[in-house]
This record gives sequence, structure tokens and C-alpha cells, in this order.
Amino acid sequence: MRSIRRVCTLAVAMILLSSAAFAAPKYRYVDATSLTVINKAQNDGLPLNRIDVEQFDIPKSAKGGLSNTTGLAIVFSTDSRSIRVKWSTTAKRLGSNMTPIFHSGLDLYIKEDGKWMFAGVARPKTVGQEHEYVAVKSMAVGEKECMLYLPMFNCVKSLQIGIDAGATIKAIPTPFKHKILFVGSSLTHGASAARPGLCYVARMGRMLNAETPNIGLSGKCKLDDFFANIVCATEADAYFFDTFSNSTKQMIEERLYNFVKRIVAAHPDKPMIFLQTVKRDSGRFDLGARKRNDDQRAAAEVLMKQICKEFKNVYFINPGFYIGEDGEGTIDGSHLNDLGVERMLNHTMPKITKILKK
Amino acid sequence: MRSIRRVCTLAVAMILLSSAAFAAPKYRYVDATSLTVINKAQNDGLPLNRIDVEQFDIPKSAKGGLSNTTGLAIVFSTDSRSIRVKWSTTAKRLGSNMTPIFHSGLDLYIKEDGKWMFAGVARPKTVGQEHEYVAVKSMAVGEKECMLYLPMFNCVKSLQIGIDAGATIKAIPTPFKHKILFVGSSLTHGASAARPGLCYVARMGRMLNAETPNIGLSGKCKLDDFFANIVCATEADAYFFDTFSNSTKQMIEERLYNFVKRIVAAHPDKPMIFLQTVKRDSGRFDLGARKRNDDQRAAAEVLMKQICKEFKNVYFINPGFYIGEDGEGTIDGSHLNDLGVERMLNHTMPKITKILKK
Repeated sequence: MRSIRRVCTLAVAMILLSSAAFAAPKYRYVDATSLTVINKAQNDGLPLNRIDVEQFDIPKSAKGGLSNTTGLAIVFSTDSRSIRVKWSTTAKRLGSNMTPIFHSGLDLYIKEDGKWMFAGVARPKTVGQEHEYVAVKSMAVGEKECMLYLPMFNCVKSLQIGIDAGATIKAIPTPFKHKILFVGSSLTHGASAARPGLCYVARMGRMLNAETPNIGLSGKCKLDDFFANIVCATEADAYFFDTFSNSTKQMIEERLYNFVKRIVAAHPDKPMIFLQTVKRDSGRFDLGARKRNDDQRAAAEVLMKQICKEFKNVYFINPGFYIGEDGEGTIDGSHLNDLGVERMLNHTMPKITKILKK
Repeated sequence: MRSIRRVCTLAVAMILLSSAAFAAPKYRYVDATSLTVINKAQNDGLPLNRIDVEQFDIPKSAKGGLSNTTGLAIVFSTDSRSIRVKWSTTAKRLGSNMTPIFHSGLDLYIKEDGKWMFAGVARPKTVGQEHEYVAVKSMAVGEKECMLYLPMFNCVKSLQIGIDAGATIKAIPTPFKHKILFVGSSLTHGASAARPGLCYVARMGRMLNAETPNIGLSGKCKLDDFFANIVCATEADAYFFDTFSNSTKQMIEERLYNFVKRIVAAHPDKPMIFLQTVKRDSGRFDLGARKRNDDQRAAAEVLMKQICKEFKNVYFINPGFYIGEDGEGTIDGSHLNDLGVERMLNHTMPKITKILKK
């Protein structure tokens, strides 16, 4: 009995050893920057930064946020049946009005019958900066065109895409026909969609067949020179502005006209679409918040009326960030949730497509 | 010059000292449990637990989650112009598909023209368990009826509501006419609304004028006995069931009939409304996920057809968690975002009101 047991143990050990020696890795990873990065404002050679923050006289307080991967996406095609992501981020703290998937995670879309459809998310760890996740698995055989949106409120230090060992992955040309630049506040930065692909800029990009560089910055965009600098230096087919969300009445009165004049001079033939800011739900009971919001909205309305008369390619969509009247369209009284984004798109898209058709 | 400066310094010091001595506190806090707690399933004397987990043969793995304040709300009236919250939670980790406001924060609604309207959130710290926030300030003078939803995925150890020093705050009777019990999975637990007041259970409660005890539990509700025990022991006007989201085909086939038989025997005259589970967006490309989801949905469909024939007060709403066809209604392929919840309500509410009118 003993010798039989010994022989069996030996046999099992040999099988385990030999399978370990011959076991091929099941997956292989490629550096995402070897694929195609879309939604960049500039060709600046920085694939994982939305903008080169050492340009454009960007103040120190804005450099961190403008280094986020906000709006960027990787496009590629693969016949892999699973898609994995390994990435590392910085220690930037989560906002209380954001999901970690939105803040530091990734969001995969795959083309189906000519339409970009949600395929899966890559969930970040909620503690630590090294992340790994299977975005999708068990897919049907065949080549797939993929678009992977990057984190909205964090910087990405490295990013690798994993495929099945026997599969191929390759860069593809941008799948989008147009390019539209968005500058703005936290609303444009994406707060607070549930995941990167659901922010209004990303959804508009898919709807309008356009790359959509996202220069939305939380707490900022007060008609500052550095935002105008970025706009002037960026070639696009159209430009969207969410410049009234953080601007006071006084800022709008003092800065708006010159801001518009500068950007129109740089791109005289391109549509410049200004979105009225959200009528904040925080102002329903908070009379102070209501007054500040009413004042900024009124100032924008008055001045944009004059500006649109003077500059033929400048448009004002009012309401711009329309969230409905029932109070259920924000996460915190100011920032659109996914329902708010849907309502905003339902309201503005007919107007936008009409402008862009001209 | 020196003596003048000395006199001035002395005068300033005296003013500061005297104002400190006479400064009355600007706010005062009351223990929230001295007010009215609504949406409790049972009168068990545990104001900050949705259920007494030492009853109902609840397994150890479910006790933590069922101790969360999920669904509970504090109702009160006050003439304070600001409302503050101080609360402490446990160290429960945030899910990557949740906002901290949803997980550990509070959500304030105030009645306006007979309707509950969003007023403000109390944001938790994203590090630590001791929180303090001004939910709303600068309100108009006058008495207000308030409802403060508690954290969805955490336990609350203490909770104090702060008002202006000269103001009053008092408990009010429940503002709701009916009581509807919800049992279910993470979908019912609220994943992943942006804030507590936006989960489908809370929204249905406001729509149906009903208290809505929430016994949704992430990862659970597989037609287990302990869920049936809770249902049997809870008196309500109607009962909702999200029992197919985590149940396999086999579980549904083996357990559903007896589950229904038990709860109908306990409440023979009350409507029992079963919601078909979500057709998961994760199954669009992941064929394994699609198969499991199709199987559970098919099993529920077949059995519920027979069951609805046999038990006259049992209903099956199919689709139940309807999220649309565009893939934008979830945060992660499985859990409804705020857009998904809106679509679900638009789809199911006409059916539900028809059933409840009978």
C-alpha cells in the first residue's frame, strides 16, 4: 500500500511540474499608448494627459486637474474574447459625489451594428493605486472595434490592455469623423455621471460622430485667459462652452465679451456654442444659492444676446444644462446625475444638430 | 505713538474677550432618534437599524448588510433656516460603483406645495467615520416639513440634526398613508442611485404616498427562508419582490413556489408584486453572463405564470427593472444608474398603480 501511495504521489508531482513548465500564459498585455488615443485637443505627444499643462500659461491650481485623463479614450480592434486592463493612478482623493468607476475607472464600448454600445467597466480598487480588472469576457468569436474611456478625475501613470494569449490587437484610425472641443466647469469635467462613458461630452461625441476633447475643470472655467489660450490653439470643427457655471455676474460682465472676441478671431468660421449653466436644484430652498445662480444666469443671458448679434457664428443654448423640474436630475443640487444628462441631451441635441448642420 | 498702539491693542483684546464670553452658540443639535423614524419594517425599538438582525434566523453573512440604515428616513418639522447633520458611521468599504453620498451620506427632502422636493445632501467624509455637513442653509422664514434619508450601504452609530439656535424642531407623524415592504437584491438595496432619495424604492414611496421599508440586500435574496420570515412577520399594504436577480434557474425552480406559498399564507389578502430582474447590459457581449441572466429570467417567467394563476393576489411585472435598449441605463452592466431607475419607473408605475387600485 505504501509503495503504491508513493508512486501515485510521484506521478501527481510530475504532472504538476510538467504542466507548470509548459503552461503558456493565458493573456498578454500591450501598452495602451501603442494603440490609438483619441479625444486629445492637441498633438502634443502626451498620450495620457488631456493637455500639456506646461503650455497655455495654465496657473498652478489648474495643472493637476488638467493632467487628468478626462475624456481620453483608447481605440483598437481585437479578436480576443476577453479584454483586461491593468493601470496605475495617482492618489487623488475621491469626491463624495462620484463613483470610483467614474473617478479612476475605465469604461469599454464595442461597436455593434455600427453603433457604440456599452460592454463593461474596469473597476478600480477603492484603496491603492494599482488596479487590474476584466472589463469583459466570454465574447463571441470575431474581430471587434473597441473604445476604452479613461478615468475622469485622476491621472493615469501607466495603462496596459490585456487580451487572450492567442489573440491579436491593433491600433485603428480614429472612428470619428469630426472633432469638437469642450471647455467648461465640473459639469463638463463629467460630474457626476456614473461612469466615464456617460458624461454628456462622451455621449454627445457618440451621437455627433465626433472626437470630443474635454477641457472641463472642476471649480474652474471663469472665462480665464488660459481657457481662451487653449481654445485659440486648438483646431476643431466646433467649440462648446460651459463658462457660466463658476463665473459670477461680475466676471461675466467683465470678461465674457473679450473672451468671445479672442476665440472668434482665432476661429472665425467655426460654430462657438455657449451653454447656459444649470438652474441649480440647490437653489430651490437655499435663497443665497438661488440668488447667485439667478445672477450668473441673467448676466449670461443679457450679454450673450448682444454677443450673438455681433458674432454670426456664436450661439447660446438656453436652457443649456436642462435637468427637468422635479429635482431628481442632480447628485447634489448642482451636478447632473445620469438622469440629468439624459434630460439635458433630450433638450439640447435637436438645437445642436440644427446649428452643426449649417 | 507707542502708548496709543498699546491702548488700541488692549481695546481690541477686550472686545474679543467679551464677545467670546457672551457669544451664544449659533446652532443646537437634537438626537435624530428623538424625532420620527419612518420606513421601518417592524416596531422593534431599533431606530437606526432597518431590521432586528437577531430575529428571523438571519445568517451571519447577511447580518452586517441588514443592519445598514437603508431606506430609513427621519421626518420632522422646523422653522430653522438651516439644517445641519452630524453623524458617525462604521468603516464599511465603499463599492466602486457607488458615490460616498449614496453609501454613507444623507439626503434631505422638504415638502413644497404638497410635494416632497430635494433640498440638499449631507456629504460624508471620504476618509474617516465622523461626518458633519450643512444640508441646506439660507432658507426662507417659515415652518418646513422635512424628510432626511439615511445612508444606503452603511450603519449609523449616532445621528444628530442641527438647527439655528433660536429655532424649534419637532417630531411629526408619518406623512405617508400606506406602507409597502420591499425585499430584494442589490437593485433594491439601491445600487447604484447617486443619492439615497433617488433609489427606486424611495422614489416609489414618494409617488405612492407610502412608507417603504427596504429589505434589499446586496448579493443576496435567493428566495431564502429568512427573507420569507421577514415578509411573513411584517404587516404592510403591499409587498414587492426582487427575488430573481441573484437566484439561479435551479434556485427559482426549487424554491419559488414554496416561498410564494408561505408569504401568501401569512398575508392572503395583500398584493404580492414580483418584479422580473433586469436584462443585464453585461450580457450584450459576455455570452456567459447573458446565458445565466436569460436562464434566470426564463425560469422566473415560466414559474410566475403558473403561480399567478394559482394565487389571485400575486402579480408579475415583466420586464420589471426595465432600463431601455441603448446600454446607458446601468453603472456597471447590472446596477441601474439614475437614468435606469427613471426608465424602470416610467415602465412599471402605470402597471403598479393599476394593481394597487384594485
